[in-house]
Amino acid sequence: MDKKQSDNLIPKNNVGITETKYFTFAEPPNELVLDSGEKLGPITLAYETYGKLNEDKSNAILCEHALSGDAHAAGYHKGDKNPGWWDTMIGPGKAFDTDKNYIICSNVIGGCRGSTGPSSINPKTNKPYGMEFPIITIKDMVNAQRYLIDHLGIKKLLTVVGGSMGGMQTLQWIVSYPDRVCSGIPIATTAKHSSQQIAFNEVERQAVMSDPNWQDGNYYGESAPIRGLAVARMIGHITYMSDKSMAEKFGRRSKENKTIFKFDPDFEVEGYLHYRGDSFVKRFDANTYLYITKALDYFDIAGDKQLYEVFKNVKAELLIIAFKSDWLYPAYQSREIVKACKLAGVDATYCEIDSTYGHDAFLLEIEQETNLIKHFLEHVYSGRKK
Amino acid sequence: MDKKQSDNLIPKNNVGITETKYFTFAEPPNELVLDSGEKLGPITLAYETYGKLNEDKSNAILCEHALSGDAHAAGYHKGDKNPGWWDTMIGPGKAFDTDKNYIICSNVIGGCRGSTGPSSINPKTNKPYGMEFPIITIKDMVNAQRYLIDHLGIKKLLTVVGGSMGGMQTLQWIVSYPDRVCSGIPIATTAKHSSQQIAFNEVERQAVMSDPNWQDGNYYGESAPIRGLAVARMIGHITYMSDKSMAEKFGRRSKENKTIFKFDPDFEVEGYLHYRGDSFVKRFDANTYLYITKALDYFDIAGDKQLYEVFKNVKAELLIIAFKSDWLYPAYQSREIVKACKLAGVDATYCEIDSTYGHDAFLLEIEQETNLIKHFLEHVYSGRKK
Repeated sequence: MDKKQSDNLIPKNNVGITETKYFTFAEPPNELVLDSGEKLGPITLAYETYGKLNEDKSNAILCEHALSGDAHAAGYHKGDKNPGWWDTMIGPGKAFDTDKNYIICSNVIGGCRGSTGPSSINPKTNKPYGMEFPIITIKDMVNAQRYLIDHLGIKKLLTVVGGSMGGMQTLQWIVSYPDRVCSGIPIATTAKHSSQQIAFNEVERQAVMSDPNWQDGNYYGESAPIRGLAVARMIGHITYMSDKSMAEKFGRRSKENKTIFKFDPDFEVEGYLHYRGDSFVKRFDANTYLYITKALDYFDIAGDKQLYEVFKNVKAELLIIAFKSDWLYPAYQSREIVKACKLAGVDATYCEIDSTYGHDAFLLEIEQETNLIKHFLEHVYSGRKK
Repeated sequence: MDKKQSDNLIPKNNVGITETKYFTFAEPPNELVLDSGEKLGPITLAYETYGKLNEDKSNAILCEHALSGDAHAAGYHKGDKNPGWWDTMIGPGKAFDTDKNYIICSNVIGGCRGSTGPSSINPKTNKPYGMEFPIITIKDMVNAQRYLIDHLGIKKLLTVVGGSMGGMQTLQWIVSYPDRVCSGIPIATTAKHSSQQIAFNEVERQAVMSDPNWQDGNYYGESAPIRGLAVARMIGHITYMSDKSMAEKFGRRSKENKTIFKFDPDFEVEGYLHYRGDSFVKRFDANTYLYITKALDYFDIAGDKQLYEVFKNVKAELLIIAFKSDWLYPAYQSREIVKACKLAGVDATYCEIDSTYGHDAFLLEIEQETNLIKHFLEHVYSGRKK
């Protein structure tokens, strides 16, 4: 962090210039045995940290990202105009207060933003993995992060937090490592992917795989399947917004620039989706999109058991947040988590925020989320001191 | 109609063997001036009729199809195993009772099932129109049908009915031709396409146009863009069902046949979408998909006016039906139509059916629709006799 740099540009309550670090499992076990039984290694995780770890290492918060996120959650990378993806929530005095806490954000395995994923070099072939990359699950992502947390010398996390896929990792942490987490904040998420959620992901994968540039995943060094990936992302963006937020933002307004070809976008909402699709493909790998959406679809934390049964060993207390207009991860899925917590005797608080932003609300309803989370963390912190 | 054929196969309350007829505007005006100002002609409409037109031609019902429908609404085509798309609603003793009524179903212009559309031969070039086909609107579809109704010698339709896009045509009929319609039954529809509805259609069009086989629409006689069209249809199918109906039908069940490649579908819901996508491309033209979805997106029956203002000249009485779990054409859009009717003094009855089927409900909630429609039509018929 270097606060002197770009001082004119960076707002005061910001963590300043940040950079991504990399952790590779170099010592044995340098292979991770995956959920599928396959082995993957060595594994590199890209991560960032904000704030300072205190002496007894009791102030660490692990922040988990969603499908298209990365390790860069807060502050500015040198030369960047835009801050990290959850900069509104992480910084001095913010929900995750860098004056008090040490915040870690790690890119997931399978990712394409510095962590080992399908675009990484397979040490066995010296070529990118492509479709040779093994299927990974949310559990695998969490197991890999556990090595990072060990590496940072943290025995117990104050909290694990995340929205959407980040919420699934949060739930997996509290179930897989009950002794290593004081609390969890799953936001706009589910304990298992529904039929409709699988359906959207499958159609998005089909959009990618239908692009002839995909070439069974062997496109590295050649033209990437950017048209297919853009279509996938456009579908995604519809599901991230609500009918109402789209109506409020775009209505039926026409684009300002007159189109030439009759099937060019002529409504504002079309222009927005194109913009989102086109900018996404510049920073994201198509194969990662396939692997991560598949990890989401396989997510069913209870499996053959009842959800409350797998929660019986949970020691963390939970703050569960959902949004009324979120139809991708509807609030009823959060309420199912709450119910299972109550049946299992897990201390859980639930809040359903009355937002119109749809699933995107977890990135936008900053004021309400900040209030809820600050009070929750104070409570968790005071509980630890007793 | 030939009831003797396949008597063993055809259920008793069925209209039997039916065939599609064709009507071409051969006399002047053999060109239709479109909404856009462009001219199109000659125009052929594919249509079917069921039941008999009575002497005073007062028992005719015009049935309008949805995006992927066609003129074959009831009965069986020779050799076919499956009946027309609304066979459950049209036949002896059914909602649209062929013992009493004469039912007409016409394919829309822009279509690919026998009516003039982008796959038809452009008389000016002797080649398929492709992207030379002009942009068409719901109003154009209705204006073309008016020539068919004239041709059949019908001065006034007893009712116009349709679900989804069929409902838009229904609304357009009662607004454009107030003296030619006694009543209308718009089902699961809207008076204008919303931002979210436009967004889904645009992504579906992008899926088609991203397929390199699309070739700017000039694929006739070559490989059609079937992968892109299949993806478009898969997206569509998600929007036709509800979260709940998908959960009830598929849940998280795995497909029975073990997949070979790891990104082949392994959940039942994925297999269903693939099946739907693959079967659709065998019977539907990709360019028609572009033109018809664009017609939907342009649909805004009031334009710059208030909806109640355009309803002021409406003479038909309306039965408006919506479904609680329909999130593609949500019930609030039907309630907006009802409100505008009330403000304009139009006689309107509204029913919101408590179905879990989502948008597909208009094809599936047969019993409730039948009861509502039978009573409504009796009422309309008795009103006419007075």
